[in-house]
Amino acid sequence: MQEMQDTNPNAALAMECKVQKEKLADAVNRVMKAISSKTTIPILTGVKITAGLDGITLTGSNSDISIKSFIPLEEDGNENAMIGKSGQIVLPSRLFSELVRKLPDEEVHIEVDSRMIAKITSGTTEFSLNGLDPEEYPNLPIINENDVFRIRKDLLKDLIKQTVYAVSITETRPVLTGVKWIIQGETLSCVATDSHRLAQRSVTVEKAEDSGVHTLVIPGASLNELSKILDDDDEQMVDIVMTTNQILFKSQNVQFYSRLLDGNYPDTSRLIPSDSKTTIDLGTKALYHAIERASLLAKEERNNVVKLRAEGNQVEISSQSLELGRAYETLVTENFEGEPLRISFSAKFMMDALSRLDAQSVRIHFVGPMRPIIIRPIGDEHILMLILPIRTF
Amino acid sequence: MQEMQDTNPNAALAMECKVQKEKLADAVNRVMKAISSKTTIPILTGVKITAGLDGITLTGSNSDISIKSFIPLEEDGNENAMIGKSGQIVLPSRLFSELVRKLPDEEVHIEVDSRMIAKITSGTTEFSLNGLDPEEYPNLPIINENDVFRIRKDLLKDLIKQTVYAVSITETRPVLTGVKWIIQGETLSCVATDSHRLAQRSVTVEKAEDSGVHTLVIPGASLNELSKILDDDDEQMVDIVMTTNQILFKSQNVQFYSRLLDGNYPDTSRLIPSDSKTTIDLGTKALYHAIERASLLAKEERNNVVKLRAEGNQVEISSQSLELGRAYETLVTENFEGEPLRISFSAKFMMDALSRLDAQSVRIHFVGPMRPIIIRPIGDEHILMLILPIRTF
Repeated sequence: MQEMQDTNPNAALAMECKVQKEKLADAVNRVMKAISSKTTIPILTGVKITAGLDGITLTGSNSDISIKSFIPLEEDGNENAMIGKSGQIVLPSRLFSELVRKLPDEEVHIEVDSRMIAKITSGTTEFSLNGLDPEEYPNLPIINENDVFRIRKDLLKDLIKQTVYAVSITETRPVLTGVKWIIQGETLSCVATDSHRLAQRSVTVEKAEDSGVHTLVIPGASLNELSKILDDDDEQMVDIVMTTNQILFKSQNVQFYSRLLDGNYPDTSRLIPSDSKTTIDLGTKALYHAIERASLLAKEERNNVVKLRAEGNQVEISSQSLELGRAYETLVTENFEGEPLRISFSAKFMMDALSRLDAQSVRIHFVGPMRPIIIRPIGDEHILMLILPIRTF
Repeated sequence: MQEMQDTNPNAALAMECKVQKEKLADAVNRVMKAISSKTTIPILTGVKITAGLDGITLTGSNSDISIKSFIPLEEDGNENAMIGKSGQIVLPSRLFSELVRKLPDEEVHIEVDSRMIAKITSGTTEFSLNGLDPEEYPNLPIINENDVFRIRKDLLKDLIKQTVYAVSITETRPVLTGVKWIIQGETLSCVATDSHRLAQRSVTVEKAEDSGVHTLVIPGASLNELSKILDDDDEQMVDIVMTTNQILFKSQNVQFYSRLLDGNYPDTSRLIPSDSKTTIDLGTKALYHAIERASLLAKEERNNVVKLRAEGNQVEISSQSLELGRAYETLVTENFEGEPLRISFSAKFMMDALSRLDAQSVRIHFVGPMRPIIIRPIGDEHILMLILPIRTF
């Protein structure tokens, strides 16, 4: 009944495989995170599919990041895929990913002929897609696995969450759009700043041999994408390979490459005051929600500023909008040391910092109304958030 | 500790009430559906709050629709609210709705002074909001409850879902942006068309007395908003009051007013062919998904057209994109009568119609490649969807 035979039966097979739809959909979904429809290199709008002897590899890439997702022939005793003929093809990524998700059957059959036409069949569906030449697909960087360390996946995700929000989003100083990582012995220290606020955390990692100090700056956008593709199997380890201009994250069946940023990252240690004139302990959530409510009025004004007054064991958060009215929030501190204080700051910056802390309570250090505010979760001295105040008094 | 007393203790109270936060949040949420931030009438950006002897009424309105949501003092043995002083105030709706949702305590206290400043307190939060003069708030239309009928809430929601999608979204013929309702005896017939497709359904309603034939055209946008505020208590009845230029929907504690559209709605009965040259029965979901997949390619072209070929007991859906490739879907009919057929139509229009039918199977009637296609759910003769084909052969 079909009018045309799209794949020429005489054309030689360039590739053939069968694969479980769910596995294929997961893998496509992952590599799509690296594919941009706005790329100026046409071949990079596609997803590269490689059928090899041990399984199927999908690759997606843009100029900054590349992701490889591997589907092994067998996993946990289940058959994921069968290879009829090894080979490769590049297919339009958006169409292919939408199609795979919507296919009617549990199994997908992919057959590519020598004219690079891919016949995709599943149940009663048959698509003939015009492929692109896999020979034109750029090679991924070759990474020399000399400098490697390991970190638990959930810790890596926390580390990203707690630093990347503070990177600069303007390109005025490109290096500030990245997070600086310093590896020294078994300690990884991460810091990000947009010059109005700063976030830093250090953690212990596994490293086979001490190869001195490595400093690298990873684009914030890369870390955000990495975080999205790390699945919830939190106890797994991620291997991290460093080179001078690339970093590679390897977790089970997924490889994530990012370029590194050039340029001198500023020395941020001098920004952090060592003294404190007022120190208060507050419940993290109570403080977050009080600022969130005060911000409902503050955000109607130009710069979303709230005021904080601390005295005795009380903290008052207030804000006002000429047009709409005033807000007062009263909090009782868990601990209060030092002088009474008045200070103003961006509600958004404080909420950004607090929302990344899992600790029940935070300790906030103030040096004065125009000096940096330091926020630390009580119980973890390795995390520090800093925000600069705003002059209003 | 608070620096200023925003509400003057000597100013006479204009209103005072306490209300459960959840009840208030639900009610505000409902009336917000009628409030537009783009209105040219400043008072209509506000929500009107009226504390009366029996409870609290919230009102939101724009030029087309008005919604009243009532919180009774008591309900199902639970105390919802207490009135200290009856009165009314208009508050900025967006701020108020965000604030109510985020308040820390289960109870909200609202106190309005004679300067129209509303003090809203809940737990440790205190907001002073500048209110607007409730005297300036326009009166809702006075509806004479002569012509009333009743319909079950779930049936009303289905009725809206199955017709409103076919209204015109361009203002070329304003009357086509509405759904025509005809009440005759205990039958309500609804029809919508944008002149490329049509949807109609009739249902039986409860009506106390036969008051002849009523015809009215309700804006599609009003019906969409109505559908959103009808809660999931599906067995409840909705009272519907008709006047010459307004319609009022009354369900428990909610009143929804909409203006009606002027103008002559075209006679659509002649559009519907009475004969059929080819009739096929298909599974609704299988057909929907086949068209959805074919549309992945078709939507890359100008007008998202798919082709259908019917012959024997087979239906083939196909599409193509010069750049990307071709798609074929093969379906086996549950029943086939009449001549073989080739026809083309908008994938979107067919998916819109099929997705509004709950029946497991549909019967599709074709008269010829350039005549309307009729889709009916098998098992309900009171629903009819029509789409015009597109010339491609």
